[in-house]
Amino acid sequence: MSYEAYFQSIREQQLDELKQWLSIPSISALSAHKADLNKAAEWLADTLTRAGLENVEVHQTGGHPIVYADHLHAPGKPTVLVYGHYDVQPVDPLHLWTTPPFEPDIRDGKLYARGATDDKGQVFLHIKAIEAILKQEEKLPVNIKLCIEGEEEISSRSLPPFLTANRDKLASDVILISDTSLLEPGKPAISTGLRGLCSLEVTVNTANTDLHSGSFGGGVPNALHALVSLLATLHDDQGGVSVDGFYEGVPELSSLMREEFAKQMLDEDQLKASLGLDSLYGEDGFSFVERVGARPTLELNGVYGGFQGEGTKTVIPKEAHAKITCRLVGDQDPQDILDKIKRHLEKHIQPGAKLQIKDGEKARAFNIDPSDRMLQLAADAYEDVYGTRALFTKDGGSIPIVETFSRELAAPVVMMGFGLPDENLHAPNEHFNLENFDKGLLTIVSFLKRL
Amino acid sequence: MSYEAYFQSIREQQLDELKQWLSIPSISALSAHKADLNKAAEWLADTLTRAGLENVEVHQTGGHPIVYADHLHAPGKPTVLVYGHYDVQPVDPLHLWTTPPFEPDIRDGKLYARGATDDKGQVFLHIKAIEAILKQEEKLPVNIKLCIEGEEEISSRSLPPFLTANRDKLASDVILISDTSLLEPGKPAISTGLRGLCSLEVTVNTANTDLHSGSFGGGVPNALHALVSLLATLHDDQGGVSVDGFYEGVPELSSLMREEFAKQMLDEDQLKASLGLDSLYGEDGFSFVERVGARPTLELNGVYGGFQGEGTKTVIPKEAHAKITCRLVGDQDPQDILDKIKRHLEKHIQPGAKLQIKDGEKARAFNIDPSDRMLQLAADAYEDVYGTRALFTKDGGSIPIVETFSRELAAPVVMMGFGLPDENLHAPNEHFNLENFDKGLLTIVSFLKRL
Repeated sequence: MSYEAYFQSIREQQLDELKQWLSIPSISALSAHKADLNKAAEWLADTLTRAGLENVEVHQTGGHPIVYADHLHAPGKPTVLVYGHYDVQPVDPLHLWTTPPFEPDIRDGKLYARGATDDKGQVFLHIKAIEAILKQEEKLPVNIKLCIEGEEEISSRSLPPFLTANRDKLASDVILISDTSLLEPGKPAISTGLRGLCSLEVTVNTANTDLHSGSFGGGVPNALHALVSLLATLHDDQGGVSVDGFYEGVPELSSLMREEFAKQMLDEDQLKASLGLDSLYGEDGFSFVERVGARPTLELNGVYGGFQGEGTKTVIPKEAHAKITCRLVGDQDPQDILDKIKRHLEKHIQPGAKLQIKDGEKARAFNIDPSDRMLQLAADAYEDVYGTRALFTKDGGSIPIVETFSRELAAPVVMMGFGLPDENLHAPNEHFNLENFDKGLLTIVSFLKRL
Repeated sequence: MSYEAYFQSIREQQLDELKQWLSIPSISALSAHKADLNKAAEWLADTLTRAGLENVEVHQTGGHPIVYADHLHAPGKPTVLVYGHYDVQPVDPLHLWTTPPFEPDIRDGKLYARGATDDKGQVFLHIKAIEAILKQEEKLPVNIKLCIEGEEEISSRSLPPFLTANRDKLASDVILISDTSLLEPGKPAISTGLRGLCSLEVTVNTANTDLHSGSFGGGVPNALHALVSLLATLHDDQGGVSVDGFYEGVPELSSLMREEFAKQMLDEDQLKASLGLDSLYGEDGFSFVERVGARPTLELNGVYGGFQGEGTKTVIPKEAHAKITCRLVGDQDPQDILDKIKRHLEKHIQPGAKLQIKDGEKARAFNIDPSDRMLQLAADAYEDVYGTRALFTKDGGSIPIVETFSRELAAPVVMMGFGLPDENLHAPNEHFNLENFDKGLLTIVSFLKRL
């Protein structure tokens, strides 16, 4: 039976199986979901065992478990390490979901659920591709290791020590990751770069109590005024970041890179229309693809303080909060960027307001040369299934562990993504287009056989 | 029996009675509390009836009920209209209350509860002062009307039409209101001015969905960036309001007014210490008392958007919100100010972001001449009880209906407050100092008898 026929014959059953996994609310950022992370890890371990993988382990960490499995019966053949994650992002604002985030629903050929594309759905493809080869051919053409973690959305805190402690066990010739996207339907891409990340939380305090705006208004500092005027100093009015030294280590865009970006032929008008935007926004002199692929950012992810209820409350709030993340490129060092932002904030905070800053995640940017043989083989595999060769792109997201993997295991990383850019990662109504579910299975099979 | 002895003899019983009223969570801003507003109005009507007042009515409105009562058996004597409110402010942040806001608790001679000082506690004084005179002397020295509403904290929407429709019924020689404060313990004050108020809610929208900051960060507008940079344009860095024409109609401070303000002898260092502030904040060239008493403000009461949970969420929010109120003085017109703010916001909103603005409350500032006979009699009454004459001050707060009352009924308004400035109005741990509970009862008796 062809692989295509094989996968078609058990499609419903496999989707039902994936839905089970997606029903587990494994939100790593919320400690209330700790048990769900364990449940999602156990579900994964069972599924790996049933798929024919060996040495399946649920490795406990200080955070959420890492699941390992392998199948090492192809002596002399390359070893592939598959990395992915079973944790998901928070789901608020919940009221914007058409169907509940943890009650997977298929509509118009798309599977809707938190984690459908990021990343349970894509990890599932690898398990089912391996199972398929084992069922069809009784052996694998390569040696396989899988390392699936539960802390990707909270900066993979436990993975680096696990990796260092298990360097021999994880040693591989190529690291294979499906946690990125096609450029658009039918247009596959292999990411040759990821942005780094750093995050911080800022709190501004003024008086020791909320105050009545009648009795005190005009005469005391307002924590929201202080925070808002502080945050407004972080950008210039062209979207650039105004923090001193922020752009040190950011590479100039070569004309070669600009050509590569231009090949993506992103239609900015279509993008605007699909996002309901009158205009895009960002640094002058760069296209959207360049801004996202090759430029660093500083984003406000959350700002809050004072009264949020119905109606009016004439209060002067005593505290206000901001959550900030930066995407980093080139040689920007996350700790150095955090230090620069802190200095900027301390310099610009208004008199009478007190500033507290808490560091969060830190990850360096990652880059790989597209001419690497493993990347070329991956492009061949895409061509087998999609009928078109993958483009080599830079991805704006961060998978913090990729840079660590590549450095620690000294192996090339193939980012073979099957998502789509409009699948609402980290937003309400996340989904996975099932066309790429079907083609993803075949592409992975093809890649493993080509190795 | 002296009034002092009378009130002492039933002090516990009266405080228990007040506690019952304070236990009813009559938060007018939250529609979920609708039934509690009715309950608080019914409680008030019963208490008025038991106190000996007549024609007690719970008048239903489109919002919360207005409670009316009178006692009109002193022909040829002046008629006093007592105004107050039984609605209270919201209570969040709840975790900052030492005891629950609707479980009244007496500690260190202070009664803690939402509404203790603003304004149930102060309304209660009038009822019990009238009851005392009726019990002690079997008649009142004046004619009395009471008009107690349930929408003061949400801008008294139903009262103006009630007032217009019942102008004859409410006609009086003086309007008596206890909803303000002494300057400090033992230092009574009669407010001769209130600031006006206007409010608005601002929403900024960007894309039609929250976006992943990796896939889109740097290339699309962020609703929080747009809101924060917009709000930052509303003030200069001296605390002044930057909206074009905002200060039109604001009177210059005469040297006479400055002298009057200076008499309050507010110790700014002590104020800073009590609020836990390193420094006060406000327009250059004005003292704290002047800033609050004679200058207009524009305050952010709430700002929110994006992720507010635990940890990090790398999201670009699609919407962000701000709640804004202004305190107005002199001839500033609330609608005109709202229009000016709207023009400012529309002018400064960044490209790619959409702005929605919703009008809220509107009230003009109020002022009265301190030489009015009714104000002088009130100062005498304070002197009888506190041993010191009340100062004539300007109050920074707004009681929107006062200006309407004064205009519609063409009568002087005596603002005879018994609160204290640090009693946490509109904030956690609101309380009422019982020294002023005791003295308030006697001062009201004295005022009614002096008329």
